[in-house]
Parts: sequence; C-alpha cells; structure tokens
Amino acid sequence: MATYLDPMYDLLLKYGVAGDDADRLHVIEIVLFVSLLCLCIILGHLLEENRWMNESITALLLGFCSGVVVLLVSKGQNSHILQFDEELFFIYLLPPIIFNAGFQVKKKQFFRNFIAIMLFGVVGVFISFAIISAGTRYMFTKLGLKKLSMRDYLAIGTIFSATDSVCTLQVLNQDDTPLLYSLVFGEGVVNDATSVVLFRAVQNFNFDAYTALEALQVAGNFLYLFFTSTVFGVLAGLLSAYIIKTLYFGRHSTDREIAIMALMAYLSYLIAELCYLSGILTVFFCGIVMSHYTWHNVTEASRITTRHAFATMSFIAETFIFLYVGMDALDVDKWKMSKTSIGQFFSIFGVLLFLTVLGRAAFVLPLSALSNYCTKSPNTKISPHHQVVIWWAGLMRGAVSIALAFNQFTEGGRTRNSDEATVITTTITVVLFSTIVFGTATKPLICWLLPAHFSSTISEDSDPPSPKDTSVDSEFHVPLLLGLSEADGENNGVSFMINGLPRPSSLTALLGGSTSGIHRAWRQVDDAYMRPLFGGKGFVRQISRPATIPENEALEDSDSQQ
Amino acid sequence: MATYLDPMYDLLLKYGVAGDDADRLHVIEIVLFVSLLCLCIILGHLLEENRWMNESITALLLGFCSGVVVLLVSKGQNSHILQFDEELFFIYLLPPIIFNAGFQVKKKQFFRNFIAIMLFGVVGVFISFAIISAGTRYMFTKLGLKKLSMRDYLAIGTIFSATDSVCTLQVLNQDDTPLLYSLVFGEGVVNDATSVVLFRAVQNFNFDAYTALEALQVAGNFLYLFFTSTVFGVLAGLLSAYIIKTLYFGRHSTDREIAIMALMAYLSYLIAELCYLSGILTVFFCGIVMSHYTWHNVTEASRITTRHAFATMSFIAETFIFLYVGMDALDVDKWKMSKTSIGQFFSIFGVLLFLTVLGRAAFVLPLSALSNYCTKSPNTKISPHHQVVIWWAGLMRGAVSIALAFNQFTEGGRTRNSDEATVITTTITVVLFSTIVFGTATKPLICWLLPAHFSSTISEDSDPPSPKDTSVDSEFHVPLLLGLSEADGENNGVSFMINGLPRPSSLTALLGGSTSGIHRAWRQVDDAYMRPLFGGKGFVRQISRPATIPENEALEDSDSQQ
Repeated sequence: MATYLDPMYDLLLKYGVAGDDADRLHVIEIVLFVSLLCLCIILGHLLEENRWMNESITALLLGFCSGVVVLLVSKGQNSHILQFDEELFFIYLLPPIIFNAGFQVKKKQFFRNFIAIMLFGVVGVFISFAIISAGTRYMFTKLGLKKLSMRDYLAIGTIFSATDSVCTLQVLNQDDTPLLYSLVFGEGVVNDATSVVLFRAVQNFNFDAYTALEALQVAGNFLYLFFTSTVFGVLAGLLSAYIIKTLYFGRHSTDREIAIMALMAYLSYLIAELCYLSGILTVFFCGIVMSHYTWHNVTEASRITTRHAFATMSFIAETFIFLYVGMDALDVDKWKMSKTSIGQFFSIFGVLLFLTVLGRAAFVLPLSALSNYCTKSPNTKISPHHQVVIWWAGLMRGAVSIALAFNQFTEGGRTRNSDEATVITTTITVVLFSTIVFGTATKPLICWLLPAHFSSTISEDSDPPSPKDTSVDSEFHVPLLLGLSEADGENNGVSFMINGLPRPSSLTALLGGSTSGIHRAWRQVDDAYMRPLFGGKGFVRQISRPATIPENEALEDSDSQQ
Repeated sequence: MATYLDPMYDLLLKYGVAGDDADRLHVIEIVLFVSLLCLCIILGHLLEENRWMNESITALLLGFCSGVVVLLVSKGQNSHILQFDEELFFIYLLPPIIFNAGFQVKKKQFFRNFIAIMLFGVVGVFISFAIISAGTRYMFTKLGLKKLSMRDYLAIGTIFSATDSVCTLQVLNQDDTPLLYSLVFGEGVVNDATSVVLFRAVQNFNFDAYTALEALQVAGNFLYLFFTSTVFGVLAGLLSAYIIKTLYFGRHSTDREIAIMALMAYLSYLIAELCYLSGILTVFFCGIVMSHYTWHNVTEASRITTRHAFATMSFIAETFIFLYVGMDALDVDKWKMSKTSIGQFFSIFGVLLFLTVLGRAAFVLPLSALSNYCTKSPNTKISPHHQVVIWWAGLMRGAVSIALAFNQFTEGGRTRNSDEATVITTTITVVLFSTIVFGTATKPLICWLLPAHFSSTISEDSDPPSPKDTSVDSEFHVPLLLGLSEADGENNGVSFMINGLPRPSSLTALLGGSTSGIHRAWRQVDDAYMRPLFGGKGFVRQISRPATIPENEALEDSDSQQ
C-alpha cells in the first residue's frame, strides 16, 4: 500500500527531475525541520554545561543560519516556505508547552506568590502598555512612520508589554530559582488574559467618545475572562479525574489513560479559544488540576509516562518555535517592502527596545514594593536583587509577539503598506535581539546577583528542590496513609502559620494572611470533598498489580497538600 | 499574548455572529475530532469485554454517525470539511502506527516466520493483483463502466490486493495469537513495498510493447526497493543507538533521549518517502532496531515512557484514522457525481468484494502449503484452520486503500468523470463493509476455529505471551550479566535446534534450516560486534542513579537474542 508520493512523482515527471511540487516541498520542509530539531537536541546536550548558552538560543541561531542557507540556495527567492504560520503556533505548538508548565509547576510556590503574580500580570501589563503605546505614538511619528493609526499604536503597546512565557521556561529553572520562576512565569501566564482583554478593547474602542464607563468595562471584561478561563480549565481537569477514577481505565490499558489526559487537556485549550477565553490560562489550570487529581488515579506506568512524555512534547514544541522564529527573521518580502533607511530602522528598533525596558522597569519596581508591603512572610518578599532579575528575565519577547504582530499588521500574510512592513521587521529584530541578549545574560546575572547559596535557602521550607530527588509516591504502597498524609498537610500549614503570620488585624495583614487562610480552607475542602470524589493523593484505587514505582520517578507529591 | 483568534474574530464581526471563517471552522473541526476521539476511547474501554466489537469498529461507526449529523446540520452542503486528506494520513498518522508496530513486535516470532511472510507479502500480492485486475477488467465493462483505462484497472488491482496493516493491528492480538499476528501483520508491512513497485510499474508501463524484460525489471525493482528500504531503516535505528550511547543523554535529561528516538524514526520515514522508497518498511525496521539496541541505552524512565508513549501515539492515530474513514463515507460530491443506478452500484460492489475474497484465497492456500513444505519446525507450520483465519483476517481494506483510490482517481480532490466517482464510492463502501463485517467476525472466528488452548500451546516455546507478565530488565540490576545473557541466548538457540531441526540435507531442509542457521550466525555477529558498538542488552552503560525498574514495565527482552 503505497504510492502516496505519486502525485509528487507525477508532477516531478512533468517538471523534470528537479521539479518543485508543493507536496514534495512540504515533505522536504518537514525533513529539514526535523533534522534541525535533532541537531538542536544534540547541540543543546553538548552545550548543557555552558553558562551562556541554552537550548532556545542554540535553536534560534541554528534556525537563523539554516534560513540564510535556504535563502542563498534559493537565490533570495524562497522566503515563502519560511512564512510564520499563526495557526501552527497557536493551535499545535503553544498548548503542549503551557499544559506541561501547569502539569509540572510547583503548586505551593505558585499559589504562595499569587498576589505578586496577579499584580505583575494585570496591573503591570496595563502600566507597560500605556508607556509603550504613548512612547511609540510620540516617537514613531517623529521618525517618519505616518501611516499607522492610533489603533496600531495601542496594538504595539499590547504586543510589547507581555512577557513571553516560553522564553521564561527556557531561561529560568524551577529547581534552582523557584521564586523567580514562579513569579516571572506566573506573570507570563496571567498577562495572557490581560492581553486578550486589552487587544479586544483596542479593536472595539470608540476613539471619538471614550468615557470612564468604557475603562470600567475593560476591567469588568478582564475579571470575567480571568474567572471563566480558570474555572473552565479546573472543570476540564476535574472531569478527566472523575472519568479516569470512575471508569478505571488502568484495568484494560494504560495507553487509554494517557490518551484521555492529553486529549482532554488539548480539548480544554481549543474550546476556551473558541469561546474567546484565554486558552493559555485554561490549559495551565487544567494541567495543575490534572497533576493534583488525575495523575493520582492512573497506573504507575502512566504516571511515569505522562510526566516524561508531556515534558518531551513541550521540549520539542519549544525548540521548534525557536527554530521557526530564527528562520522567520529572513522574511525577505517584508524587508524589501519596508522602505526605511538603515539609520531610521535602528532608531525605530532602539525606541521599541528602550520603551520595552522602561515599561517593564516602571512596574516591576513599584509593584514589588507594593507586594512586599502586602506580605509578611519572609519567603515571598522580593529583594532588590530579585527585582532586577525579574525585570531583566521578563524582557524577552518571543514567538507570541511575532504572531501578534503578523495578526495586526498583515492580511493573508502580506503587509498593506511600508510602515506596517517596518513594524513587522522591527518586531522580529526586537524578538531576536531580546531573546539572544537578555536570554544569554540571564544565567550569569542570576549567578552574580543571587549567588549559589540563595537557591538552597529560599527553597529550604518551600518545595523540594527537584521532583527527582524526593517524594516517593508513598500512598501507593500504603493505601491507608490518608490520616498520615492529612497530618502531614496540617503540619505544613502550621509551620506556614508560625513562620511569621500573626492573626491578620489590618488590611495589610489581611492581604498577606489571606493566602494562608485560603490555603487552610482549601485543604479542608480538598480532603473532605474533592479528593474522595476526584481521586488524588491517598484516595487512589488499588491497581491489580501494585508494582513498586521507582522512587526517583514519582511526580513531586509534596505539592498536593494545598 | 493573545488575540490569536482575532482574524477569526474580525471575520466573525464582518459576517455577523454566525460567520463561518475558515480558521474558526478548522478549530471547530479539530474540537469535533478530539471530542470524538475521547468518546471512542471511553466507549472502547466500556466495550472491551465484548466479543464482537473492537476499537476500530467503534470508531468507524462513531465517525459515520457524526458524519451523518454534520451532513444533516449543514443540510447536505458540508462534505468539504470531511474530505479525505492524503497528506495528513501518510505524513502524520501512518508513521507512528507502523513505527510502534516495529518497536513492540515480537521479533523472534517475526523472523521465525520470515519465509511465509515474504511469500504472502510478495508472491501473494502479485497473484491477487493479477486476479483482481483481470476480473474487474472483464466485469466492469459488462456493468457499463466504459471510461476506465487499462491503467485504471491495474491500479484497482494494486489497491485491493494489499492487506491493511492498521486494521490487522486492531483485530489480531500479538499476545493471544502470535503466529497469526506475525504472519498477517508482517505480510501487511512487506506488501507495502510490493505495492509501491507494482503501482510505479503500472504508471510507467508501456502498454503497446511489453516484453519479458519489463517483467524482469519489475522484479528487480522490487528487490532493490525492499533491500534499500530495509537497510535504510536499520541504519537509522543504529545511528540513533550510536548517538544515544556515545553522547550519553541520560546524564542531562531523559526528555532528550525520547525526543531523539521519536524524531529520528520519523525522519527515517520521511527521507525514505522522499527517496521513493517504502517508508513503511523503513520505519518498521527502524522500530525493530531501536527496540533491540537504542532502547537499552536510555534511562529506565525513558524506557517506560517510550514504550507507553509510542503505543499511545499509535493508538490515537489508529482511532483517528477509523473515525476519519467513517466520516469520509459521506463524501456527497462523489456520490452525486457517480451516475450509477442502485442495482449497478451493488453489482460493482459485489464484483469487487468477490474478487478481493477470491484473490486472497487464491494465494493463501497454495502459499501456505508451499511454506509448510519448506519448513520443518512444527511451530511455524500453518494448519488448515490457521489458513482460513489468515485468509479471513487479511480481507480488510482500510484507509490506505481509500488514499490510493483518491490518488489514482481524483485530481485535486475532484473526480474527472462519473466512472471514477463510482470507483471512489465503491472503494469507500468496500472498506467500510470489509472492516465492519470481516473485522467483527474475526475474533469469534478465531475462538471457533482455534479454541483457547491454542494460544498457550503455540506460544509455549516461542515468545512470552505478554511483555507485561515477564522479562525483568535484569541486566540493569546486574551489569556484569553479559556472560549469563549470552549463555541464555545460546541455550535458546540450542533448544530451537533440537526442536525438530536436523542438519539440512535437501533444498527443503535447507530453506527451513536456513532461518535457524542465519539466526545463529546473526547472534554471534550481534554479540561480537553489534552490541558492543551500539549498546543493547548487557552492554548498557550504568546510569548514575540505577533505580529499580518496575518488573512489569520492562519492554520484552527475551526477544533481543536473535
């Protein structure tokens, strides 16, 4: 059963041996990409111990180099097969990355910093958006870009005010710098929802008569979007837990469990997008819920497999994106269409970069101070050194910015005028520059500002530093450990309370204490209602073949007590 | 970072709320498919114990029903989103299925039956092809199809003479009926190469002056294609083993190992297709080599993950294909274009089905006799009951037949005349009918013809019945087990020799004994050169954290002694 290449074969016969049939070209493109992916993985492995490099920068540079080669081979003609494809990015590549981040996130650390994350992700984006929009509006007209509308400037504001969560995942390490990771990555996830609202608001804004009511509407929209996206993700996760717990898939096949988990998470992302919610928020919370409930209901083999298979998918998708962005830098059509001089181009580039840096500084420092003021727990205080790293590590703009720029400034892949082409090319340049420069310098900066002992002190009473070193999946061996595990959780909570949290008496203390109060209340609900219903640690059904799970392979469980 | 749905959003605004933007439709289509996949998995689980149903038939029926619903909702208009897409099938869905089959196949059983498999897969396809081509040529003109050329009839011959390996995987169970599985599935893989050659030959055949030389050329082409495809797959597998062994990926991350294995296997398929080889053969042998060498070089976590993740991918792809074929039955354009009466349609359908059944009977029975004559080992004798089941279980035609029919009889998804539309619609009907009828009846037929004790006797001294029940990955715990494991292999070989194989003295004995001789020679080469170089059982480097691997999770190792 073959001949699938025959349409190509026919065409190749028609056009002679060196024919350029579209199907065949497509296969060649995939071969090229997959080969580059393999090369990236090998290079990334060899450069693992290098302080300056990381996988994303390797991929970016490799993509760029191969883009140059393709361009040279095709004599400057073939930028078409390198065209950035929004659909590929948002429908296939992004969901596994964000889902895996939610699935493997250290939940305790994440929820402990919830206030700071919300401040950065919501208020911060608004501040940065205002600065970048106003700044570009003021400077770009001076630099000779006259065809952009107010709406375009506001769009530029949203495009450059959001941190790229994919870059963050590559540069910050959850185990080494848990506080930084949860803050910067958490912000990246939350500001997705903010951007959706902002971008929609920009699209529908009535510029002739804007009132305070419309601003209120934007705020209301945000709350609605954030709430519904989160709830939807949580419900999807719970549904998967319930189905797997009730139907007891492990009895017949472990593959079905894995398939159901992956497919339901993906479905939650897609449906959220269809309903104009934030798919990123949804699938992130779906991942968190799945690791808290569903993951405990499946067989040991499925646990190990999901943990590594989801990480691998995410890893491949990330590498793919960076390769893609690297290749995309050579979109010759846009470069040709943009009619700016070199001086003008670098001015525009400089302005955008400066505004991005300024916009981020303008919210990281004051909001960190506010967050420090609101919280009493020494673990969640953000020191000045931390603030600098947060500011720096969140400066990277990635594939999402490019996708948004294409969305706003092209129609069917083509720009409408030279100014729009200029915006696209500068966006690509800013993304490349910020990823390479800020990306390479982040690791050294962390080493310099937050010396090695930092990570051990900060993670001492927070999460265990690595899921690989700890957390035997003990409830599996002792199915009646429920009481113990509850006591454990209680203990945890007590130490958290003692750790510097008196009864809240003022607003500040209330804000700071509320996370702990919520945490305790949540644990009670979880133990009493949620885990008996949806499974989870201590509530798993015994599998017929209760083989030992390798101790270093269990997903981190100490987190499941929130 | 959001607004990825905004092109849809814009368009929806333009067209009103119920707009039908293409991107949005595409997302809806994916949501529909993923939901159906989830439903299939759940239904398949619930129907697991049912004797008549299996996952593929559930998927086929579910696909058909949802196709009807879509058609009703769109008032008969919307057959477009159900259009069968060859590229999706051959580039994305088929490779993981065939790779996983190679990765998890019981290698000893497969190679023991090699002669019978080659007879069925090569000679059998030629016999069946001749009968179906001649039969349709004779009957179709009588039934009023006058626009088909000789080339079309020969194409119909190739389309209907090849067993669908995907269907076989679903209907036959490797653990319960290892001999049947290896024969019918092995045939399915090998006849892919045969079909490539036949189809190419048909395309380039000079009908005015065909000579014996051309027939010889076809045979030569087949040998070349079979040899190069196999060698390429083996080389790709060895390369992956060498890279992972040399670079020692497990040191840094287990995800990289998994990614490299999956990507290199996929790459081998794509490159084989680009070089006009049989990608199916290539990726199948790549899977075999990977399970023999590469799989032993990775960490325990990667072993468990690859085993289950590849199986899950294959499972999802299979279910997807059957859903797809079920929906595809409702390609209204083709049905409208076909101008046959109901009587004529059923006559054509009946002729095709009869010729398929006859063509398969015409080679299974004589070739089984030949195979029995050539082999002396009682394990590989094909009893009359087996012959009936082989004949029956290989009658299913699947997605590959549909893809080939679309390839031959459409241009850009459209048929050129009414006769071609008729061939397409009959092909779809034959596929649906054969999968549902022959598929549902296979399990009961096996139970009836080959009662339960069969499977235990046949598998007694062949492979262990299930990878889950046996095969502790023992060389991992005792890294110096090399000598032991060799002795083990030797032992195995000796019992194989004693089992009824005297020194070959005649051609028959030579043919029968050759597999055993080759097997011994191969084992010596494997121990002396291959495994020291490429890793493999007994030659793995010790991983820094040598945790225990769950005994029931190790991939079947007793096979690695060939």
